[in-house]
Amino acid sequence: MSSCIFCDIVEGTAEASMIYRDDRCCAFLDIFHASQGHVLVIPLAHAASMGELDGKTGGHLLEVGMDIAAAIRRSDIRCEGINFHLADGRAAGQEIFHVHLHIIPRVAGDGFGFKFARGRAARQAKAELDRTAEAIRSALQQA
Amino acid sequence: MSSCIFCDIVEGTAEASMIYRDDRCCAFLDIFHASQGHVLVIPLAHAASMGELDGKTGGHLLEVGMDIAAAIRRSDIRCEGINFHLADGRAAGQEIFHVHLHIIPRVAGDGFGFKFARGRAARQAKAELDRTAEAIRSALQQA
Repeated sequence: MSSCIFCDIVEGTAEASMIYRDDRCCAFLDIFHASQGHVLVIPLAHAASMGELDGKTGGHLLEVGMDIAAAIRRSDIRCEGINFHLADGRAAGQEIFHVHLHIIPRVAGDGFGFKFARGRAARQAKAELDRTAEAIRSALQQA
Repeated sequence: MSSCIFCDIVEGTAEASMIYRDDRCCAFLDIFHASQGHVLVIPLAHAASMGELDGKTGGHLLEVGMDIAAAIRRSDIRCEGINFHLADGRAAGQEIFHVHLHIIPRVAGDGFGFKFARGRAARQAKAELDRTAEAIRSALQQA
């Protein structure tokens, strides 16, 4: 056993209800699910954070997640909508430090979803948004 | 003006604080932000739902989102973590029916994140999870 439960699932030394596997990722059910059909898609190679994951593999996780979401909608699992959710860092709610994309089936009135502390913010001033956009564009160019 | 505000932003007939654009997607600041630096990444071509979006373009949205998330972390915007969030369908919280991936900077104790109606569920029975996994695997093969 490694110190990472998701690596153990990849290696087969911890059990999981597996949905899908290819040469870069696998998908299995979250044992502490938010709803029936709550799936996690993870890279096979350990990456604690998105900063440790190459972009192509990250994109592949969502591409596979889209196929699984479509399958959930075709199945008899209750599903009127889907959330794709990924928490990168403890402050963002990450609990297992091996990147994982949540695929969460939703039904109207199920009472969960993304919550905003103050409700959704008031519309921001364009000048302030433009300053923030410039800060991000500038940092993008430093990549 | 079209009937879709995000198509109007793509066409340049509605304003936005733009971060990034390539031949398949663009990224701009959410005017009703959850936090400073809250970015939306959208496909240029209108797709109301993930079912209307091809997987490669979907994956590209996350790949671009990862670059933007890394840029936010390099910038002076307050950011200790990042949520990547996508709502597909009204029951999942989708409000604008043009696919958009949220990139949301987080700091510890900011009070938002994904909320679970009953708190997180109890650990599910393996036999029940295995039945659900089989239902999804079976539907995947019908693609």
